[in-house]
Amino acid sequence: MAEAVRLGEAARGLTAPNPNVGCVIVAADGTIVGRGATAPGGRPHAEAVALAAAGAATRGATLYTTLEPCAHASPRGPTCAGLIPAAGIARVVAAIEDPDPRTAGRGFDRLRAQGVEVTVGEGEGAARASMAGYLTRLALSRPRVTLKLALSIDGKIALPSGESKWITGEDARAHVHLERAHSDMILVGRGTYEADTPRLDVRLPGLEERSPRRALLSRTLGPVAGWEVLEKPSDIARLHDVNDLLVEGGAATATAFLAEDLVDRILIYRAPLLIGEGKSSFGYIGLDAIADAHGRWRAQGGAGLGVDRLEVYERAR
Amino acid sequence: MAEAVRLGEAARGLTAPNPNVGCVIVAADGTIVGRGATAPGGRPHAEAVALAAAGAATRGATLYTTLEPCAHASPRGPTCAGLIPAAGIARVVAAIEDPDPRTAGRGFDRLRAQGVEVTVGEGEGAARASMAGYLTRLALSRPRVTLKLALSIDGKIALPSGESKWITGEDARAHVHLERAHSDMILVGRGTYEADTPRLDVRLPGLEERSPRRALLSRTLGPVAGWEVLEKPSDIARLHDVNDLLVEGGAATATAFLAEDLVDRILIYRAPLLIGEGKSSFGYIGLDAIADAHGRWRAQGGAGLGVDRLEVYERAR
Repeated sequence: MAEAVRLGEAARGLTAPNPNVGCVIVAADGTIVGRGATAPGGRPHAEAVALAAAGAATRGATLYTTLEPCAHASPRGPTCAGLIPAAGIARVVAAIEDPDPRTAGRGFDRLRAQGVEVTVGEGEGAARASMAGYLTRLALSRPRVTLKLALSIDGKIALPSGESKWITGEDARAHVHLERAHSDMILVGRGTYEADTPRLDVRLPGLEERSPRRALLSRTLGPVAGWEVLEKPSDIARLHDVNDLLVEGGAATATAFLAEDLVDRILIYRAPLLIGEGKSSFGYIGLDAIADAHGRWRAQGGAGLGVDRLEVYERAR
Repeated sequence: MAEAVRLGEAARGLTAPNPNVGCVIVAADGTIVGRGATAPGGRPHAEAVALAAAGAATRGATLYTTLEPCAHASPRGPTCAGLIPAAGIARVVAAIEDPDPRTAGRGFDRLRAQGVEVTVGEGEGAARASMAGYLTRLALSRPRVTLKLALSIDGKIALPSGESKWITGEDARAHVHLERAHSDMILVGRGTYEADTPRLDVRLPGLEERSPRRALLSRTLGPVAGWEVLEKPSDIARLHDVNDLLVEGGAATATAFLAEDLVDRILIYRAPLLIGEGKSSFGYIGLDAIADAHGRWRAQGGAGLGVDRLEVYERAR
């Protein structure tokens, strides 16, 4: 299952609105005979890819998948819950049920009805983390929003002059590009757009093709070529084909999303330096008492990136 | 040597202006026969305490000490470089040389001249870290200054109203009290003094007696009972009997010390919460370009404290 999660995670940012599923088929002798992930654009599904790779070796094998096989027919392909028994798979191990109301347990029911043994729950935590974008979209009818900030120890994003290049080092900036590659869309505010005219592309060897769609938060700018314009944070509910949205700044945009409680995850790239007088990360986010600030964010550990450090926080809902 | 460092560290905050040395005596069969640390007030020295504890078992034994045994006679006691050979110690293992110009290698010379085998350097890093206050005082003619801050993710110390109780939780606050117990003096600014009338004492079971001296940074307040008043940060050079000074706030005081480059270590107690609009950690600290901010602080790792996290930074000099 760990390998299935890894395959699914590699596809994150490419499959929306479909989930980034990973799948591994293991023969009775323990050999891996097929691997698959949801293909770019969402089809074929991970199970279909792995079944095709395994060929005749599927007979009597065990199929590991990070998500319940689909039970809903589509003009774009047959159901996985139909393909799997037809290929002679004896057993399916799935990490989680698919909350899509067209499947939602029906995939497992169909498999069992056709004599396939089904186990659910292995690797649930890792699978949920990897497919958090898809799961958030189904649960909250909007993309999962990740807010990214490069901060000093004292939480500043820039000098009073606006100078912010570079607070963090190369390793941290490369990590941002990796996060971009796993996002379906990146959003910045008007200030960042006008000051930096950012490319927001992925500048990592081999991942250049994974640059996501770009969005701009602005009430006043009209259509901008190459950009999708949102007037307000809650407009993200319109983005039905975005699982993972990465908000890259600046402070006003971050504040607007936080004030509407539309942030699910925060990535802080913390540089070991002090700025002192400078630009703060956020303005008023609706907090009027310290007691109300507690319990909303959970630290999810961190990692060293050169001299900098990544801190990950998730919204506790 | 690890045990000697541990003993010395436990005495940190009690021995100034003397160093907080730890000492362990090990007999030829490997048994520990004596332990010692610099006594409160600085005398007797760790070696004398350990020799007294070991009694006749010192003959032929090895003495581990975190600092070179003293070579300067004092009205308060004999030199350790004299006591050690007299007790029949065969070998001395010391972590570092004593930079005190009255010793500075002469302790080792005297031991060797009296037939004691001497090894220097074992556990040097840990010993330097534990005696950093003493070493800073000798190197820079002022105490080591540790700045302590309780901060949100976004680097705020309070709401706009000034409300800051409590950003961090109980575990973090208990850790602050432990740090107080290991300081010789605690300093706050006038604002913190007048707003909070802080006790700045140690409220940890068994350590209540270790509450350090209290100092106030103010140009205008006259003598205050129970407090020592400093007019400006550089006045810390007058504190000849303080190894470790803990600066607890507020923002103006922290800024004043940072602007004069008088901070050696920063302890950030980081709470997993966002404040947004609020009071920043520091004002203008003299930084005019991001490039100048790099390389001044080294992250020294951290530790979880309940839901909070301690970040330690040391000034790279």
